[in-house]
Amino acid sequence: MTSSTDYTPPAVWTWNKESGGRFANINRPISGATHQKELPIGRHPLQLYSLGTPNGVKVTVMLEELLALGHSGAEYDAWLIQIGNGDQFGSGFVDANPNSKIPALVDRSGPTPIRVFESASILMYLAEKFGAFLPTEIPARTECLSWLFWQMGSAPYLGGGFGHFYAYAPSKIEYAIDRFAMETKRQLDVLDKRLANNTYIAGETYTIADIAIWPWYGALAKGVLYGAGEFLQVKEYTHVQRWADAIAQRPAVRRGRMVNRTFGEPSSQLHERHDASDFDTKTQDKVSPAS
Amino acid sequence: MTSSTDYTPPAVWTWNKESGGRFANINRPISGATHQKELPIGRHPLQLYSLGTPNGVKVTVMLEELLALGHSGAEYDAWLIQIGNGDQFGSGFVDANPNSKIPALVDRSGPTPIRVFESASILMYLAEKFGAFLPTEIPARTECLSWLFWQMGSAPYLGGGFGHFYAYAPSKIEYAIDRFAMETKRQLDVLDKRLANNTYIAGETYTIADIAIWPWYGALAKGVLYGAGEFLQVKEYTHVQRWADAIAQRPAVRRGRMVNRTFGEPSSQLHERHDASDFDTKTQDKVSPAS
Repeated sequence: MTSSTDYTPPAVWTWNKESGGRFANINRPISGATHQKELPIGRHPLQLYSLGTPNGVKVTVMLEELLALGHSGAEYDAWLIQIGNGDQFGSGFVDANPNSKIPALVDRSGPTPIRVFESASILMYLAEKFGAFLPTEIPARTECLSWLFWQMGSAPYLGGGFGHFYAYAPSKIEYAIDRFAMETKRQLDVLDKRLANNTYIAGETYTIADIAIWPWYGALAKGVLYGAGEFLQVKEYTHVQRWADAIAQRPAVRRGRMVNRTFGEPSSQLHERHDASDFDTKTQDKVSPAS
Repeated sequence: MTSSTDYTPPAVWTWNKESGGRFANINRPISGATHQKELPIGRHPLQLYSLGTPNGVKVTVMLEELLALGHSGAEYDAWLIQIGNGDQFGSGFVDANPNSKIPALVDRSGPTPIRVFESASILMYLAEKFGAFLPTEIPARTECLSWLFWQMGSAPYLGGGFGHFYAYAPSKIEYAIDRFAMETKRQLDVLDKRLANNTYIAGETYTIADIAIWPWYGALAKGVLYGAGEFLQVKEYTHVQRWADAIAQRPAVRRGRMVNRTFGEPSSQLHERHDASDFDTKTQDKVSPAS
């Protein structure tokens, strides 16, 4: 190990505002609002405040899937929360999600707005509201929810662990990269073994378990997350590859991943979504020789 | 920063079986069973395979709370899974939880056994099976589930991040300790602000959100997790303190935290639980001058 040190933690931790690497400006030891700012409200029943990260994509894919099934009550306005600018610390956002993380959903379809936070909680809320993508029979529902919770407990090791230390930390710490690379590969192997015998994560039906897991582990398997495809030898996970490709082909998934996206090809970015026709412009851009 | 290094990750990660610190023997980059071993089955409807870590305590507290409410269908056998010995890699355990983590529950009350894995998934399953500790009205249910999912997405930063680097890693890495200490304090502050205006996490009612959060953040706040009370100045979070103390006093919580426990005072450890009377012996031990 090249990163051994003789560091001894102090008796009491103190906040060094200079540390923290790439996300130093948005990582804080205190919660709550830093400034007064109301959230915008559009014309649809559902108001989404998000960003096109894997956790954000879960929800926009779900909403597009619901609309594709004909659930017009799933019409939504997707507003951009620029976490690099601290939008998540505005008072309105903190009211919607006291944890100051995207995504946050506010359902304004009833007499009193209902806030929903944590991406998987939003998936569950929408699945129950519309009766879709979550089996109703107890054994199948249980299996789906176990995998949904699996995603919530596992992805922090991928994102906050492996991704941070491999791609974002100010120096490469061998022990930390090794620890989280091992766990990330184990998680990929858990999925690979599951998908060897099942078309989708929860069985033969596409569910919120797939919608939760695909934006993280599908992107990782295709080598687009952290540029770590070779490092983690993601092609070895052939069943994950098959599943990731199949989901990527779904029209609702292709739309959902564009929403609130702020990176990649300009034609793949729909910063805000307020109407189904918003995607048409983007498709035109894509085929335009001028784009 | 004293832990800077000039380490450059290789093109392809390889498994160094010597690395990994205290848990090197149970952390692997592959999933699945390492040996053939069936799980024991007792006489009750619910079979729990677990260990008295915070994730295990969530479920034994829930089961004891259900029994305290009079739900005799929640009678359970709690079997010990010694993760240090690799019990979680036995074939029977892997069938119950392909992720090889405690806790795993098998409900044998119906014609076909139902497996449930991930601690919060088990809480949700039991809450719905018995209609308890989860509000039924949509806004209250939604708030409860958002906090339940919050716990699942947040505790990996506390346990797999802060706890690992502060207490278990083979060397003290300043950057990693600092990163996860900051996030852990932020999480405590999120809870503290929430509990300033609410008796319990989801509002005025004790729910599975409390049952999920207390074993991690209650223990942290009382300084019994990682010996980090002074380092994180946990006493500052006065509302978390009030809530942690209130929950610790519940008789079902006092029983639940003893089950599958393998550390602390011998009188606090009930390695397996097969009958409500199993606790009586322990209580006798506790007051016996001979213990």
